[in-house]
Amino acid sequence: MKHQKIFREITKDLKKVEKELTSFLLVEEPILSQTCVYSLQAGGKRMRPGFILLAGKFFEYEFEKLLPVAMAIELIHMATLVHDDVVDASLTRRGRPTVAVTWGNTVSIATGDFLMAKSLELISKIDNPEVSKMLANVSVEMCQGEIQQIKCSYDVKQDFKQYYYRIRRKTALLIGLSCKLGAMVSNASKRNVWIIGTYGYCLGIAFQIVDDILDITADPKVLGKPVGGDIRQGIMTLPMISAIKNLENPERLKEILSQEEKSDQEVAEAIELIKISGGIEESRMMVSRYIKKSIKYLDELPEVPTKNALYELANFVGERSY
Amino acid sequence: MKHQKIFREITKDLKKVEKELTSFLLVEEPILSQTCVYSLQAGGKRMRPGFILLAGKFFEYEFEKLLPVAMAIELIHMATLVHDDVVDASLTRRGRPTVAVTWGNTVSIATGDFLMAKSLELISKIDNPEVSKMLANVSVEMCQGEIQQIKCSYDVKQDFKQYYYRIRRKTALLIGLSCKLGAMVSNASKRNVWIIGTYGYCLGIAFQIVDDILDITADPKVLGKPVGGDIRQGIMTLPMISAIKNLENPERLKEILSQEEKSDQEVAEAIELIKISGGIEESRMMVSRYIKKSIKYLDELPEVPTKNALYELANFVGERSY
Repeated sequence: MKHQKIFREITKDLKKVEKELTSFLLVEEPILSQTCVYSLQAGGKRMRPGFILLAGKFFEYEFEKLLPVAMAIELIHMATLVHDDVVDASLTRRGRPTVAVTWGNTVSIATGDFLMAKSLELISKIDNPEVSKMLANVSVEMCQGEIQQIKCSYDVKQDFKQYYYRIRRKTALLIGLSCKLGAMVSNASKRNVWIIGTYGYCLGIAFQIVDDILDITADPKVLGKPVGGDIRQGIMTLPMISAIKNLENPERLKEILSQEEKSDQEVAEAIELIKISGGIEESRMMVSRYIKKSIKYLDELPEVPTKNALYELANFVGERSY
Repeated sequence: MKHQKIFREITKDLKKVEKELTSFLLVEEPILSQTCVYSLQAGGKRMRPGFILLAGKFFEYEFEKLLPVAMAIELIHMATLVHDDVVDASLTRRGRPTVAVTWGNTVSIATGDFLMAKSLELISKIDNPEVSKMLANVSVEMCQGEIQQIKCSYDVKQDFKQYYYRIRRKTALLIGLSCKLGAMVSNASKRNVWIIGTYGYCLGIAFQIVDDILDITADPKVLGKPVGGDIRQGIMTLPMISAIKNLENPERLKEILSQEEKSDQEVAEAIELIKISGGIEESRMMVSRYIKKSIKYLDELPEVPTKNALYELANFVGERSY
């Protein structure tokens, strides 16, 4: 099932979020408008606004109240992507050259800062101290995840704990928060806010592990970028950490992964070693475990028609190929 | 007069701001703590917290209310400096290697993002929607100034209007806002908030023009970085724009300024041409004009002992050599 189909119930409202974001990002500096709209139009699955709206559907759904929160979260997410592409020196994102490749690193840094500032502008208008605090805290945690990734790059000694520390901050917290805020703004009870937030958090962990698996196993055309990107950038992901642990003789894999410069052939060799090690299967098991966890939380939520979409979403995360 | 002397009335409280900032920036990721404390300890004049506290002294001064605002503004300022150093590829700031030189560009990007996120954390705790909105708006404007600077770099055709557009956003608005918020938080009347804000704004313009003059005329040891940095980075400042306008034959200067690569000798030649053009004197006249403006606004403020410090501050900005 495609994610668009899962979002069917909120398609119209998601489009409105997108439209509002576009006009919100048109400013007097044409370059900034261009880079922002370019980033926005690059697409992406709009998972976070999707989670916010779907979470809202469980309770007292009011689109006007959810809209600025959805916009703010998507802006934070976009800001991190634009800066990540500079940090990781990525060439493409979602099948198109990155902002950094098209406009240069300096414009990208300013664009990321601008997206963050625009998010702050929205947050200040939402005028809900609780929401502001939660968004601020998550932004701080995300930076900590980012710096840990930089610090640990090319470090083949890192363990599962370090990996989970990072993906929790880089991905899971913001997805969890999207669910939480969608529920909070829609007057859910504290307990339900917590439950749906934990659903999103677990799904976020699974989502990131799948991302890391796809970076090794996907069809580059479907993925929108070449495979092996993490290997090239020295980002140690779960399949790699598992492979090092599982291989009888992991020395060659460690050697390739720790090198800052790698040939295409070496990347292909590393991918092969990871595949034969069982690292992919082990990672897939973890995905299943987190998806099961997320479903367990979902079971506890009120029975509303939307519930089905969240089950589908959990399954989509587990099975997605893009 | 040194700025420390001007700040004598608030020295103790400024130290508290600094101490609070240091402990606020200690987080579980040691690299982030290091880069942030390094940026903080690099010093700087703490003009913005200084303005906030001095503005407060005109009205109902309550340090506890001013503290988070002063911290938030200094964090925003620090974040922009850390990212600017990456964008401008500067080697030193305040006499020490930049964060980018010491830890690399990727760590610098993450550090700037983290400082901004920590500022957001503080702003969310201040829980004053007016303050949040003003800080958000200024952050957006600052990014627009930054992008305009990138866009116009090495462009010798730019005019005074473009220059003022930029320094207004890069410097003056945040200093003006510091004064405004210091007054606002201290229960000043709307009119007085506006007056002291305009004082700060005019002084901010003067401050930036002086910065741009010093980049050409200063003693590098006193300045803490080599002169001619703007010329190297292609940032067209007031003395340069004036020089191009004033020189009978500006072609050689335009040629050097528009080149992305310049030898030390060419930078020295450009400095010489700017000096003989009268561009420095013309820029100094603009400084005087803005300082006089700022003093005119100051005259309208209540007669309190602190008023003298703000007069001294205006004169310091006009005469400073660092």
